[in-house]
Amino acid sequence: MPDNIVDRLVEIFRRFPGIGPRQARRFVYHLLHEGRGSIDRFVADLRALHTAVTQCEQCFRFYSANTNYRSGHTCDLCSDSSRDNSLLMIVEKDADLEAIRQSGTYQGSFFVLGGLIPILEKDPRSKLRLPELNATITKRLSEKSLVEVIVALAVNPEGDHTIEILKQTLEPWTKKGLRLTVLGRGLSTGTELEYSDADTIKNALENRS
Amino acid sequence: MPDNIVDRLVEIFRRFPGIGPRQARRFVYHLLHEGRGSIDRFVADLRALHTAVTQCEQCFRFYSANTNYRSGHTCDLCSDSSRDNSLLMIVEKDADLEAIRQSGTYQGSFFVLGGLIPILEKDPRSKLRLPELNATITKRLSEKSLVEVIVALAVNPEGDHTIEILKQTLEPWTKKGLRLTVLGRGLSTGTELEYSDADTIKNALENRS
Amino acid sequence: MPDNIVDRLVEIFRRFPGIGPRQARRFVYHLLHEGRGSIDRFVADLRALHTAVTQCEQCFRFYSANTNYRSGHTCDLCSDSSRDNSLLMIVEKDADLEAIRQSGTYQGSFFVLGGLIPILEKDPRSKLRLPELNATITKRLSEKSLVEVIVALAVNPEGDHTIEILKQTLEPWTKKGLRLTVLGRGLSTGTELEYSDADTIKNALENRS
Amino acid sequence: MPDNIVDRLVEIFRRFPGIGPRQARRFVYHLLHEGRGSIDRFVADLRALHTAVTQCEQCFRFYSANTNYRSGHTCDLCSDSSRDNSLLMIVEKDADLEAIRQSGTYQGSFFVLGGLIPILEKDPRSKLRLPELNATITKRLSEKSLVEVIVALAVNPEGDHTIEILKQTLEPWTKKGLRLTVLGRGLSTGTELEYSDADTIKNALENRS
Repeated sequence: MPDNIVDRLVEIFRRFPGIGPRQARRFVYHLLHEGRGSIDRFVADLRALHTAVTQCEQCFRFYSANTNYRSGHTCDLCSDSSRDNSLLMIVEKDADLEAIRQSGTYQGSFFVLGGLIPILEKDPRSKLRLPELNATITKRLSEKSLVEVIVALAVNPEGDHTIEILKQTLEPWTKKGLRLTVLGRGLSTGTELEYSDADTIKNALENRS
Repeated sequence: MPDNIVDRLVEIFRRFPGIGPRQARRFVYHLLHEGRGSIDRFVADLRALHTAVTQCEQCFRFYSANTNYRSGHTCDLCSDSSRDNSLLMIVEKDADLEAIRQSGTYQGSFFVLGGLIPILEKDPRSKLRLPELNATITKRLSEKSLVEVIVALAVNPEGDHTIEILKQTLEPWTKKGLRLTVLGRGLSTGTELEYSDADTIKNALENRS
Repeated sequence: MPDNIVDRLVEIFRRFPGIGPRQARRFVYHLLHEGRGSIDRFVADLRALHTAVTQCEQCFRFYSANTNYRSGHTCDLCSDSSRDNSLLMIVEKDADLEAIRQSGTYQGSFFVLGGLIPILEKDPRSKLRLPELNATITKRLSEKSLVEVIVALAVNPEGDHTIEILKQTLEPWTKKGLRLTVLGRGLSTGTELEYSDADTIKNALENRS
Repeated sequence: MPDNIVDRLVEIFRRFPGIGPRQARRFVYHLLHEGRGSIDRFVADLRALHTAVTQCEQCFRFYSANTNYRSGHTCDLCSDSSRDNSLLMIVEKDADLEAIRQSGTYQGSFFVLGGLIPILEKDPRSKLRLPELNATITKRLSEKSLVEVIVALAVNPEGDHTIEILKQTLEPWTKKGLRLTVLGRGLSTGTELEYSDADTIKNALENRS
């Protein structure tokens, strides 16, 4: 790490998603122009972040640990008895979960897998929360609530490879009747046929209705 | 029209898809730098275009009228007896048809509708080849070959509005048992959940499998 | 060349500046959708282009050979006695000349060099109109009109290399007193210091006033 | 301010230059995925920033207040006796100063003005460090070192308007012989004549050499 504070902060900001060295430096100038009071509030929020926001021990999403609905370290979604516990949707990351939740089209429960696996990854299983997923499914099945696991991952080679790994991992349960589905494929909003790839056309054709 | 030839050609090129005034002018400079022989070959091909390429009177796509397989002004696809005539896919334009054909995933026949209809269009039916579509379907049904019409349009408000118009237009036949389907919707290649709209998530969820 | 007319026109349009294969094909579809009358007018203008537009034998720009001001194959600019013949500006191509002419800031004469020379070019002199430039300068000096040659080329390695070649070529005259200048360098419209390279800052500093 | 820490941090990141709401939220997820140790180091650097980096009371740039060369709150550049104190360059902001310094083409001193003034600004003088600039120039002139003030601002309407304000402000001194210059204008690196505006061509022509 550089021993100069400005350079050190530039290094930290460069690790932020989508930020290059030039913009990282502009961030530091921005902070220098902010008053000391702004920095103090920023620091206070940053320090409180890991206390205020914890990871749900059931679905592994990050959530604001408001003490009111807190019950045994599970998040507001997992604690919400009005949600449909017969469905468990596996997503890659918090941002995906958030987009699906905000779409208002899914009322079941979630599980954040923590990543996607490239095809050449040597030790794929260590990169995902597979033991935690197994534990969640075991618990849910023992409660007799779970009927279907829905895999909701990005449509790319890593996503497809991860779907294969999940299918293998969940095979002991699917053999016993647990339903395992994958989000449907076809034309998405804004798609123009002229610019569509063969896979998308094939899926759209198979899923026509 | 301007009386200067350069300006007139700039005007013509500006009507080409995606071309602004600056690039239109560069096209003219490009032609000036080409030798007279190049221009002559260009002109010869342009003059021959409307003779060599005609519109199929069955599917309305443009095709190279090679005399060998020519039979009553129908294109190579419509004349190809190995294609599945039980399926008729309605597309907006030639480029869409070409993309679907090249995907290698569809072996049925096509019909080029000729456009999409904006929601506020006053006289929507005049903009589409609806009488021609009716004629084609009538003929196909009389030949007892047609089983299903597949609507393959872009996923946007114009596409959706055009689907509604097609459903009304084809209602007399669908009531009598003709199957009418629309390309399936869901996640397309490259989709990331984080950036997906609610409609796409909803469709992907409904079409999960 | 492909023997199919559509593919042949796609090939021709792909050679247009900035056009890829996909857009080239859309151009052909565009032409197919245009009526025969449009194509006929397009063809007529293309055929007339090389007759109507000729290259000035003095400055080598392309110009509309309107018979009214035509005098010995020189263009309207070169024939315009109100322009300042003491100045000769060397530009790379017609589009540069046009931009400078339309800026309204230069009233002298022009010479279109026909290209820029990459540094590793083996036979650089053959790619430029150097004999023609020599002839023009000789003629102008014998008429005792020419005082200054202004080099107006793009600011990049090819431009700089071409400037060096021009300086060597014109040395016999500059030694005898012909003034040879290069367009000034510094900050151009829209420049932000934060994103400027060292050369631009150096030039702007040297040319401060 | 939202009472939720995540939303509060999103708000803070949205004020960072060039950051929209979506990327701001990704920043927070990034921080959540970083361990507590990373956050602690980030917080430590942020807290130390305003102590470690102070504003030079002479040129108003931010600098790392390393105690070694510290002398009366002036920065390393202002304290550097090898720099040419006969020149004072006025820049808008730290990032501009940094770009000019790193170009290695200027060895004089700097003054950070703190902004540019839009043409319709009602109270333009309050937005710039004009009293501080006056004080610096007075001091420098009394030390008999200052010969020339160089204005180095972006080439846009705000920059040009600010140059006018500076010329009025410094008039008492320029009348007495202080030289006031503006960075030269013309073609900058990468400029192509074809795409140049009239102002740039005019400046390049006037500054030809």
